[in-house]
Amino acid sequence: MSGRVFEEVERERAREISRTAFEERATPLRVALVEAQRALAKADFPVIVLFAGVDGGGKGETVNLLTEWLDPRRIETHAYDRLTEEESQRPEFWRYWRDLPARGRLGLFLSAWYSRPLVDRAYGQIGKGALDRRLARIAAFERTLADDGALILKFWMHLDRKSQQKRLESLQKHPRDHWRISEWDWRNWHRYEEFTDAAEHMIRRTSTAEAPWLVVDGRHARYRSLTVLGMLQRALEARLAGRPPPDAGYRARAPVASPAVIGATVREVKPLTTIDQKRVVGRKVYEKSLARLRGELYWLAAQNLLHGLPVVLVFEGWDAGGKGGAIRRMVSALDARCYRVHQVAAPSDEERAHHYLWRFWRRIPKGGRLTVFDRSWYGRVLVERVESFATKAEWQRAYAEIRDFEEQLTSHGTLLMKFWLHIDKDEQERRFLLRRENPYKAWKLTDEDWRNRAKWEAYEDAANDMIASTSTRDAPWSLVAGNCKRHARLEVLRCLCAALEKRLKQRASE
Amino acid sequence: MSGRVFEEVERERAREISRTAFEERATPLRVALVEAQRALAKADFPVIVLFAGVDGGGKGETVNLLTEWLDPRRIETHAYDRLTEEESQRPEFWRYWRDLPARGRLGLFLSAWYSRPLVDRAYGQIGKGALDRRLARIAAFERTLADDGALILKFWMHLDRKSQQKRLESLQKHPRDHWRISEWDWRNWHRYEEFTDAAEHMIRRTSTAEAPWLVVDGRHARYRSLTVLGMLQRALEARLAGRPPPDAGYRARAPVASPAVIGATVREVKPLTTIDQKRVVGRKVYEKSLARLRGELYWLAAQNLLHGLPVVLVFEGWDAGGKGGAIRRMVSALDARCYRVHQVAAPSDEERAHHYLWRFWRRIPKGGRLTVFDRSWYGRVLVERVESFATKAEWQRAYAEIRDFEEQLTSHGTLLMKFWLHIDKDEQERRFLLRRENPYKAWKLTDEDWRNRAKWEAYEDAANDMIASTSTRDAPWSLVAGNCKRHARLEVLRCLCAALEKRLKQRASE
Repeated sequence: MSGRVFEEVERERAREISRTAFEERATPLRVALVEAQRALAKADFPVIVLFAGVDGGGKGETVNLLTEWLDPRRIETHAYDRLTEEESQRPEFWRYWRDLPARGRLGLFLSAWYSRPLVDRAYGQIGKGALDRRLARIAAFERTLADDGALILKFWMHLDRKSQQKRLESLQKHPRDHWRISEWDWRNWHRYEEFTDAAEHMIRRTSTAEAPWLVVDGRHARYRSLTVLGMLQRALEARLAGRPPPDAGYRARAPVASPAVIGATVREVKPLTTIDQKRVVGRKVYEKSLARLRGELYWLAAQNLLHGLPVVLVFEGWDAGGKGGAIRRMVSALDARCYRVHQVAAPSDEERAHHYLWRFWRRIPKGGRLTVFDRSWYGRVLVERVESFATKAEWQRAYAEIRDFEEQLTSHGTLLMKFWLHIDKDEQERRFLLRRENPYKAWKLTDEDWRNRAKWEAYEDAANDMIASTSTRDAPWSLVAGNCKRHARLEVLRCLCAALEKRLKQRASE
Repeated sequence: MSGRVFEEVERERAREISRTAFEERATPLRVALVEAQRALAKADFPVIVLFAGVDGGGKGETVNLLTEWLDPRRIETHAYDRLTEEESQRPEFWRYWRDLPARGRLGLFLSAWYSRPLVDRAYGQIGKGALDRRLARIAAFERTLADDGALILKFWMHLDRKSQQKRLESLQKHPRDHWRISEWDWRNWHRYEEFTDAAEHMIRRTSTAEAPWLVVDGRHARYRSLTVLGMLQRALEARLAGRPPPDAGYRARAPVASPAVIGATVREVKPLTTIDQKRVVGRKVYEKSLARLRGELYWLAAQNLLHGLPVVLVFEGWDAGGKGGAIRRMVSALDARCYRVHQVAAPSDEERAHHYLWRFWRRIPKGGRLTVFDRSWYGRVLVERVESFATKAEWQRAYAEIRDFEEQLTSHGTLLMKFWLHIDKDEQERRFLLRRENPYKAWKLTDEDWRNRAKWEAYEDAANDMIASTSTRDAPWSLVAGNCKRHARLEVLRCLCAALEKRLKQRASE
């Protein structure tokens, strides 16, 4: 590719600004930033600012200045160390999802998700292909957040090779700072070219309209501060006023990364029509099979505690479709320490202030554990679509977001199973009426159930689209005929046992 | 001690209930429980039900039955395994605090905080004294929750030695269940007497009016289920109706544990009057000392990453007292990965639905990390007292609760420092007026600041009481004269460096 990303910055040779000139320009900028932050507090989007760049380029100093200028109660700073045990048992992006700022807040991220790909590439740990796959994952992540409204800015603090050397030497000489420089800093410096090449490629690939990279000359502290904070202020002000983002002076003129296409093709079928409700299981066969399957599950789950496979089970389906009963029959065969059931109800205010996937990311299990979601992230394309809680654009892009999320789970090694518990319309009515008459089940039936029932066809369309759009090779939907409860419960257990056994055998043979 | 806790249950020799009799009694009980749970959803207290007892006594089955009968969206079940890395780096009760149910919800706990003390004692790992200290900690924990309104019930599922043997043998014989029985179960059974002795002592010590133990004959499933669920229903109903708890049939007639006395004696002094505001630091001395201290801190913090000491810093003080400035001068000398600052503002709805200490427990650091609380749990005895957000009983008992909380931090090895940044009334006015005129600091000054200022004397009383009541040997208050900002900032850094250095030396010599 022609045109080095950093050339423009290096050619400019910006000069340091005098202290007086700085003070003159800093005061109105600071006032404007404070104003913008105050307006942000009432706005419905979060701001994500990422700082990466050459060591010594001023990432930390800029973050410090921001927290000094602004109201620190509405800022969070996140820097990342090696993975903790809990983190290493989840997909890579788990820890970043956990730390995302809520709407109205400002999150500052140091290197974060860009750190590993860059270091791994500079040290030749990964090839170009692997780097590109990781960058596609990052682009998808940022697009998901931007689609949800996040304002994302990424600053690359640049130093040319010579300037970095000078910076490291001067820090090392100074008795006050010399311990800040470790052997690692010099080792990285010796790979300056490798780092810069990888960074240029990375910036080109991940600079998008919604999450642009802004390359900044990092040599002069005052110049750098005014540049970065000025860009942030203009971008924030533009967004608050509903204007398009300003064309920042130092933005790398990078091609927009092509969107990563993940997941299955959408078929023009109606999956629900393929479900055969004719199978009926008698009590005796049921009790015997249930006991056998529960025993099998218990044993497999105990094995899995050793093998450390995370298991995620999703249950969706019609009201009164038998989700609760199927889940109970399953988990009561397990040791209470190895599973957790999440009943997905209305989100808390903390959850509501984040991306809709945030609260599910929070709850994914570590290795060896099983998490059951009784209703799930699929609410986005079911109830939220039908009830118009989500806009058409929102629920339509949710298919790709969900495929991407699930792909992260499965490529991390998670066994992900999704069950649709299906009953037909008459069976639902029969169950509703039974519930109404049963003194200890009446609470299960609310006016909302009847209202939902009136929209049966709309839900049916949504379910068909959902299944067609999100059944992937590694995370297929299992459609369970549920008119006969006994059949459905056994079917769920059978599917789970079979999948778990298969995966454990694979593990054992690895 | 005379009178064995389990004798009464063993003597009763309850018989199993027939299936028909069970169904007859279960239906109204289930209806009543469903009703109670629905009322609970709107009530302002959580319910904590703990199940412990002899292996095979039916803990798990009872929990399963409860989640089957009730609305599972408002129940959480918690069982505990060996400590994770994140857990082992915090005080023992961290993981229990994380899992406490919110108001209106039901939390079911399996063994939980009673598990380790019991096992350790039965296997002779700890002596009687150590057991009693751990039981006192548990009693204090449960009292803290009960004081906050939690309804606490603890069921001990009992089996006599013979019955347990039979249960284990029958499980082992059955091809479906035999893997449920491990070598450990038999090893525990061989120590039946040791377990029972320790359990009796434990039940006597921790059965209080607010968190009673209820001993249940665990031999017969139907009998046991009706007993436990009936007790729960009656206790819940009584509480919802504002009545005192029912006198359950199987409650151990245990002496109430004597409250554990922790912390310092309250002195009749006004600590704030001892602060000397005369010290003033000139700019040159300040800049030089600041650079030196920041360098020192950076180095100590880097050392501490290796030594793994958790550090908690609390900042309280008058509005405009200089907390923010002191914190910034300190943390900007640190690597962003090793610290976190929590600006304590209004709690989220999730936090509001828990005990006021819950949100601070969530945020305590792991080993090697430093967490700064800009305002803290002391809000309970400062603003909440002065503004009457907390009742007198609430803020008065908060001193002991806070001492207990901090004692858990320090005895876990946490370096805990508490700074009161003090300015006098005139200095505050001067700063308020300066802020009002400064275009980028005006946001810091709100009407509330002026309102708080009008209550200066009330806050002064509260602060004096707080410092006198919560300055303990391991967690003393540092009173910092703040009229001279430079002096205050250096003082905070000096205190922190000195304490950190001392503790690191201790560690190194261990």
